[in-house]
Amino acid sequence: MATVKNRRILLTRRPIGEPSEADFAFSEVELQEPQPSQMLLRTLWLSLDPYMRGRMSLRKSYAPPVEVGDVMVGGTVSEVVASNLDKFAPGDIVEGRTDWQEYALSDGTGIRKVDPSLAPISTALGVLGMPGMTAYFGLLNVGQPKPGETVVVSAAAGAVGAIVGQIAKIKGCRVIGIAGAPEKCEYTVKELGFDACISHREPDLSRQLEQACPQGIDIYFENVGGKVFEAILPLLNDFARVPVCGLIAHYNDTELPPGPNQVPLFLRTILSRRMTVRGFVSSDFADQRPAFFNEMGSWVRDQEIKYREDIAEGLENAPRAFQKLFRGENFGKLLVHVAEPSAH
Amino acid sequence: MATVKNRRILLTRRPIGEPSEADFAFSEVELQEPQPSQMLLRTLWLSLDPYMRGRMSLRKSYAPPVEVGDVMVGGTVSEVVASNLDKFAPGDIVEGRTDWQEYALSDGTGIRKVDPSLAPISTALGVLGMPGMTAYFGLLNVGQPKPGETVVVSAAAGAVGAIVGQIAKIKGCRVIGIAGAPEKCEYTVKELGFDACISHREPDLSRQLEQACPQGIDIYFENVGGKVFEAILPLLNDFARVPVCGLIAHYNDTELPPGPNQVPLFLRTILSRRMTVRGFVSSDFADQRPAFFNEMGSWVRDQEIKYREDIAEGLENAPRAFQKLFRGENFGKLLVHVAEPSAH
Repeated sequence: MATVKNRRILLTRRPIGEPSEADFAFSEVELQEPQPSQMLLRTLWLSLDPYMRGRMSLRKSYAPPVEVGDVMVGGTVSEVVASNLDKFAPGDIVEGRTDWQEYALSDGTGIRKVDPSLAPISTALGVLGMPGMTAYFGLLNVGQPKPGETVVVSAAAGAVGAIVGQIAKIKGCRVIGIAGAPEKCEYTVKELGFDACISHREPDLSRQLEQACPQGIDIYFENVGGKVFEAILPLLNDFARVPVCGLIAHYNDTELPPGPNQVPLFLRTILSRRMTVRGFVSSDFADQRPAFFNEMGSWVRDQEIKYREDIAEGLENAPRAFQKLFRGENFGKLLVHVAEPSAH
Repeated sequence: MATVKNRRILLTRRPIGEPSEADFAFSEVELQEPQPSQMLLRTLWLSLDPYMRGRMSLRKSYAPPVEVGDVMVGGTVSEVVASNLDKFAPGDIVEGRTDWQEYALSDGTGIRKVDPSLAPISTALGVLGMPGMTAYFGLLNVGQPKPGETVVVSAAAGAVGAIVGQIAKIKGCRVIGIAGAPEKCEYTVKELGFDACISHREPDLSRQLEQACPQGIDIYFENVGGKVFEAILPLLNDFARVPVCGLIAHYNDTELPPGPNQVPLFLRTILSRRMTVRGFVSSDFADQRPAFFNEMGSWVRDQEIKYREDIAEGLENAPRAFQKLFRGENFGKLLVHVAEPSAH
């Protein structure tokens, strides 16, 4: 095994604005043997997610940044190649944070087994993984949907948004999506059962939103920010809830947008409508994971919740694929297919 | 009784910017006899509160505006002069919303009796009334203070802010006030027991706040908005709570402030620190009033919570006194002393 190379993708500089392929570099190192308290994992799938843009930046956030020169962080589904740990055996399929690389050594921290008989293993990075938890925890805990309420979700065809809308439908809500392309809108309505979907590229977004939400908006699940947020704000009802999950329209901002400063309008709306605006990340609700796996597992099995994947082939294509997130070019959960499991 | 005049203060036009005395007019009408389902109330105290600015405007809010030509709305403490209601008898002292006038007819809706033996009756408009409830409900429900946390409250010497800080001290928090004058700051620290208080007129407000909050801010009780809010935002901790109670710096705004637009920064802070920002008004927590009267009553009786009143003499001076709220000129709960109770 000492001759095997581990190919890894490093962060080589902090991007200013939109990340480019030049912010990353390939690096090959010799694979180390697992220590007595370690196992060796071979990456099968790498998840690409908007939060990674935050890790590339020094801006204060809920997790420390990746150091320049280090391997990019990321969630993966892997196969256990060799294990000195009692809980894991060669051939096991596992999910964890083992980063943008073909192999990883792990002491098992944060690693969970994935049952390949339940669903395709890639779903452990999507509907049955972090994005699914983000949708489930955020909508149910922060959004608190009630039957008959109107729920609007942005990035509606994305990994989180598509799940948010489907859970809201299960909970008896009227669901309006906002997406960036006609085919994404069509998908959320025809395939996922949303009541309507509006493209944020429409010049009359505000008017279309108003028409789609005759009873106003009770929950706005925020994934984007920017002008979508501005169009939503006037339509929020008394006691509306705004789970703030992502702000992809702003992740590449190099400066604040021009005025006027709309913070006073935002605060006044929060006060006069007694709204709740709350940021969250899925790890804040770790104690609810058993409920998630149980409920989401049966929804996926019964096809009450559908999902779609957007797959890039080969680790070397991860940097280019990652850029699609910020251009709205991915359609479904963005994944990199790194390798096939070995035959057993 | 048919010869008695009722002097009232009407809204004569909607103010643009800061209210002026010319937005109000005195009007005398002949006092009507109470109907069989009514009682006649004589106003003793009128409360002047920032929310009234909202009622003068057509801007969408949680309560309908006062119509031009109508009597200005307001909370009062009154004496029952005559009553055809079983529950109220002449001489009773009551609190309710009977507006800017010397007399009012009431069918008893929203009227509660005040026990003059418990505390001065004017407190039914302050520490033991709406402002006290606002502080109590907002801090406990939205702020959820825990021992050792840092609480910052703006308008710290005002009717609500002074109570918020004292409850937070009772709950074991470190309390920092923000006020507009050195004597107000001194009052909150020396009289009310705040740990520190900073004038928002200091040029280095941000630096002083940072020094006063070495552990960051866990709860910011928002009464003002504007540049105080901007100075607070960078200091808020993970999982911080921001009860939005008032925005007095903005009530007279005629346009939004110049850019840049800081909404993206605000949203990013909410997300990355998983903050909760929630607007509320005291009536949202009507079911908790018994707990309020019980607990706040004993705090006031035991002088664990102190209060201060700023009293204008005579109903005719209400419009001029009202302006003090927006100039930061009141020092304590602003009241108009309209009449003395009759001797019994």
